[in-house]
Amino acid sequence: MASKHTQILKKDYPWVTSPLIASAPMRLIATPTLAIEVSLAGGLGFLGVGTDITKFSPWLNEASSILQSSPILNASEDVLPIGVGFICWGVDLPTALSIFSSAPQKPAAAWLFAPKDSKDLVSWTEGIRQTTDGNTKIWIQVGTVAMALDIVKSCKPDVLVIQGADAGGHGLAQSSSIISLLPECADALATEGFGNIPLIGAGGIMDGRGVAAALTLGASGACMGTRFLATPEAVISQGYKNAVVEARDGGVATARTTVYDKIRGTIGWPESYNARGVLNQSFWDNDKGMSDEENERLYEEEIKKGDAGWGDQGRMTTYAGTGVGLIQKIQPAGGIVREVLKDAKERLAATRGLFKGSNVGS
Amino acid sequence: MASKHTQILKKDYPWVTSPLIASAPMRLIATPTLAIEVSLAGGLGFLGVGTDITKFSPWLNEASSILQSSPILNASEDVLPIGVGFICWGVDLPTALSIFSSAPQKPAAAWLFAPKDSKDLVSWTEGIRQTTDGNTKIWIQVGTVAMALDIVKSCKPDVLVIQGADAGGHGLAQSSSIISLLPECADALATEGFGNIPLIGAGGIMDGRGVAAALTLGASGACMGTRFLATPEAVISQGYKNAVVEARDGGVATARTTVYDKIRGTIGWPESYNARGVLNQSFWDNDKGMSDEENERLYEEEIKKGDAGWGDQGRMTTYAGTGVGLIQKIQPAGGIVREVLKDAKERLAATRGLFKGSNVGS
Repeated sequence: MASKHTQILKKDYPWVTSPLIASAPMRLIATPTLAIEVSLAGGLGFLGVGTDITKFSPWLNEASSILQSSPILNASEDVLPIGVGFICWGVDLPTALSIFSSAPQKPAAAWLFAPKDSKDLVSWTEGIRQTTDGNTKIWIQVGTVAMALDIVKSCKPDVLVIQGADAGGHGLAQSSSIISLLPECADALATEGFGNIPLIGAGGIMDGRGVAAALTLGASGACMGTRFLATPEAVISQGYKNAVVEARDGGVATARTTVYDKIRGTIGWPESYNARGVLNQSFWDNDKGMSDEENERLYEEEIKKGDAGWGDQGRMTTYAGTGVGLIQKIQPAGGIVREVLKDAKERLAATRGLFKGSNVGS
Repeated sequence: MASKHTQILKKDYPWVTSPLIASAPMRLIATPTLAIEVSLAGGLGFLGVGTDITKFSPWLNEASSILQSSPILNASEDVLPIGVGFICWGVDLPTALSIFSSAPQKPAAAWLFAPKDSKDLVSWTEGIRQTTDGNTKIWIQVGTVAMALDIVKSCKPDVLVIQGADAGGHGLAQSSSIISLLPECADALATEGFGNIPLIGAGGIMDGRGVAAALTLGASGACMGTRFLATPEAVISQGYKNAVVEARDGGVATARTTVYDKIRGTIGWPESYNARGVLNQSFWDNDKGMSDEENERLYEEEIKKGDAGWGDQGRMTTYAGTGVGLIQKIQPAGGIVREVLKDAKERLAATRGLFKGSNVGS
């Protein structure tokens, strides 16, 4: 099974090192520079168009231009060796399709997330496949076994991203971690005849240990978002990066909440979603009963502080996953891809050593 | 590091197969039969004394008696090759110590969980070590990095159990899954000079894939609770076992809540704890605003239905972790221990295969 998935991924993204490491399409944070650095290092980088379709065309042009001077070995000429992520409830599909249509190089993958209604993903999938002659592969993000089964039946995506509750930023308010979600999805998909679709694990993965764990749980690759926040390439302020490096004990330093959406005036997320971020003064004031209006006013004031507005004493939103405490420094994105693969491989070898001398399975 | 931990575990529990598989001390569910079956299969089974100290002495006698007819190879004569788990806030320490003192065979390990105040664990640790001449090793369960650091400094336990948010039954209301919690604890402990304490991963682990994941994340062994509910040895009703086998999509079929404690009149848990169980009518009625009194009354009525009172349409409490959807059948506990070890070993080998042909780390 594993080998079949690896072959599919190798065929669709021929420059990619196995197992596949993807960078998440973090909205307006993952721009061409980050996505390309990840792909140049043998991963698959995604652009975070999110809900802002005006960025799509300029970013494709920018990426094509960068890649002319730094071409990626094994990448085909028709295909841009990066992906693009959409938050579907906030994007007009015909507009997106017209940009796909006029793009000289089609992105290698489109990552679809959070439609108003899961049925909308059928039009997205069919539209993108038709418009790009199948050159843009369809990745769909799910967070429950039921969603996974529903989506494979209606859309037959090329890849399913299985996101657990530890993930930073937006995701389902109610879900498990990938510890149980990945194997339960893998089993349910295999039982229903969809065992050939590669799964990518996401949520709480920060380093080679997490990547190795995702692979043993049934994924053919791993996606990281939070880890790539602490890179020179991520388009966020230094204050945000500092807050990511400084946070510790991610299970208690972060929580899933809607308070950050409220104070920032983000509206439109389906009700079943919230977002994980580092707890800060906005969170605690909300917890103590402060009105959204007052909390929003204090947030607007805090913006004036610049980088000092971040951190647990600040009010600037630091979306991050539970693994944020594992991040110790800011590091180039390409180095992260190479490091986590090397560490995952070594960790798997060391873990097999734990069975040495025992008579397991003999 | 791994090999050092394996040596410690092999020395302290010489009958155990590496890596160590433990069965959780589920309160009044894990009795001598379950604990012994797990140890006989090369694991370490725990008795779930929980808050009911009256069970401790009779269970030790029962276990000694069973083990006289089914002795465990490599177990020393002074030590009972099973452990015992206490919910510390609900147990009088002097009473527990007097039973340790008079026991002809000391249990191999004491698992300490949920004290009123974490400082109480110092008296527990010192008391048990003195009373048993160090024959009973100290296992302490934690759910955050801060707790792990606090406990190793104050108690120097023999083993730390790192429990993630996916776990069934009681645990911290706020924590991450072991995906990030295990590696962050491992790093923090190593940095502070406590890297020699073996870690056991718990929470959402159901099969060889979960065991393999826990090991890659930094554990030297894995503990399962929910999986052992679906065994002939677990002392729960057939209705409870059926509900465990039938539940699917554990991330949405279960939730962390205090509602089941309320309707069952369980009082005494420190405020930072709640418990994960399968969602049922008690949960939904509470969600819709039903009073605790009315919900409790309906629960008391439901008891009369016997096995039919379980399941998502019932009201009997089904504590279970997010991995409950992976359980397909009732199976003897010893077979589970052997199967998960064999599957974990095979899965690690298969996962290494994903790197085949790639130039990672070369």
